[in-house]
Amino acid sequence: MFSPVEFEGTLAKDKKYIGIDIGGTQLRAALYPEEGIEPIKKKIIATHNGDEKPEDRLNDLIGEIWPDEGGVERIGIAVPGPVDPKNGVVYKASNVRGWIDIPLGPLVQKRHNTPVILGNDANLAALGEWRYGAGVGHHDVIYLTISTGIGGGFIVDDRMLVGPQGIAGEVGHITVLPDGPLCGCGRRGHLESVSSGTGIANYVERRLKEGAKSSLSLEPQKPTSRQIAEAGAQGDPLAIEAFEYAGTFLGRAITDLLHIFNPTVIVLGGGVTNARDLLLNPVKRTIDNSVMTPAYLEQLQICYAKLGDQAGLVGAMVLAKG
Amino acid sequence: MFSPVEFEGTLAKDKKYIGIDIGGTQLRAALYPEEGIEPIKKKIIATHNGDEKPEDRLNDLIGEIWPDEGGVERIGIAVPGPVDPKNGVVYKASNVRGWIDIPLGPLVQKRHNTPVILGNDANLAALGEWRYGAGVGHHDVIYLTISTGIGGGFIVDDRMLVGPQGIAGEVGHITVLPDGPLCGCGRRGHLESVSSGTGIANYVERRLKEGAKSSLSLEPQKPTSRQIAEAGAQGDPLAIEAFEYAGTFLGRAITDLLHIFNPTVIVLGGGVTNARDLLLNPVKRTIDNSVMTPAYLEQLQICYAKLGDQAGLVGAMVLAKG
Repeated sequence: MFSPVEFEGTLAKDKKYIGIDIGGTQLRAALYPEEGIEPIKKKIIATHNGDEKPEDRLNDLIGEIWPDEGGVERIGIAVPGPVDPKNGVVYKASNVRGWIDIPLGPLVQKRHNTPVILGNDANLAALGEWRYGAGVGHHDVIYLTISTGIGGGFIVDDRMLVGPQGIAGEVGHITVLPDGPLCGCGRRGHLESVSSGTGIANYVERRLKEGAKSSLSLEPQKPTSRQIAEAGAQGDPLAIEAFEYAGTFLGRAITDLLHIFNPTVIVLGGGVTNARDLLLNPVKRTIDNSVMTPAYLEQLQICYAKLGDQAGLVGAMVLAKG
Repeated sequence: MFSPVEFEGTLAKDKKYIGIDIGGTQLRAALYPEEGIEPIKKKIIATHNGDEKPEDRLNDLIGEIWPDEGGVERIGIAVPGPVDPKNGVVYKASNVRGWIDIPLGPLVQKRHNTPVILGNDANLAALGEWRYGAGVGHHDVIYLTISTGIGGGFIVDDRMLVGPQGIAGEVGHITVLPDGPLCGCGRRGHLESVSSGTGIANYVERRLKEGAKSSLSLEPQKPTSRQIAEAGAQGDPLAIEAFEYAGTFLGRAITDLLHIFNPTVIVLGGGVTNARDLLLNPVKRTIDNSVMTPAYLEQLQICYAKLGDQAGLVGAMVLAKG
């Protein structure tokens, strides 16, 4: 009896996808095979260079990682700002020069004659972590990235929450402390203003000016959240207090999100999570003390992101795969 | 040439659905045709009667509205509390005697030999308003019901948000005022504790005890939110202040939800919304003053619920239709 065996080598006709992650400093592009997150080709260049338009640099970069044998199914692009996914328009990417209401999707699609799909980078990082990172096996994922600011994304029943205008998921801008510190967006008391690296550094600055005792000092310059985390690891009381404060409000915001979404995993990413237990302990304690019923915790995992700074790129590829 | 014409009259084989809305006071049941919200039969009885089990009363009630010609596709049930939709279990319905961890779905399914599907009543009211009420034509709907407590439900891209354990959508229990008033759930500063009818009445009580001037009085008894709304309509300063306070926090919570979901409509239901502009004006003003960017308001409508106290029943029917 004859059993046909399929050839499993990499054929030229295998489907390929391109993922792009746009940042204020770097443009990253990778060519991916049909399965897995190991790129076939990958290239990183500076976003800005003299008078060149970032969108022209991006189009050239895509050309450089194009497969030799041709043929890309779709290009997914992670954008650092709100986008209109239906029309492929970037509403605003503050860190990329000239990117206000630019039709990035059509521009790239026309040049490479290949379908293009856009997403917000934090939403796509959530998608990447769900498909290939800390959220694997979960259907309902909340991803938070805590660094200079706070962003995030939501996977609801295996689908990414984007909203009809593409501006859902702005978790850094929920109000946690009415009339609290000024946020980067111009409003007050948002989660980002309290629990981001910037919020933590501002808290320490304020308390040092009040005369709080600490190994930290405002000279020669205001400490960064990283320096505060290091001081906290050495037992500095003000540093510990600052992370307690940030973690308590982060825990409250996460509790709100548990009540709204009932997820099975919270994935925490971004540089501030390198403080580990200094941040995570007050977060967990606050959640335990704030949920309506323990049912919200029965199936819940809280864990760190796995994809690091690849999350946006991988998410863009997952988006491209559709 | 012969064109076959389908007979469009009501045939015995037309599909029929049963919707049930369970409350602490009343059990409502209605038999619905395949289209529309006009019931074929409808009956309302008391939830409790002597020693009878509410689940037995419910099963008898379903028998009473069963179609004469037999044949119901599915029974949808709105429950006043959290449910496990996968296993048809009511975790807890505080206002229904003995309903803790009861397998309501299997009990009804076995008795009537018909598929049963359960949902939380506030989530199902959202579903009803989306399909047949103020949310018609929208794909992303936030529904809030403001009465003694605050409940709600979310429609995300035409799907009801229930969560893997079925306990999503508890919007009344997001924290709006850290360390604020005690909530019915035992925690502090939840939206329900500040902006519900109970929250408004408690606010007025507190301010009267502080000596605030008002036509309202704690004698012979503490005013209800309805009486406060009536006083507000007559220009009473404390009543206006109380609705300003409640509306401001409600507006902040809605702004958080705009940033998270980017919906196109907010539907407000429940008895407290009878105060109309007294509540809605501070809500709208706060939203205008709190959103990150006006983009969240471009496609947004804020409107009152249309289905009134039928929302849960209609939602149960929509759920049954699947």
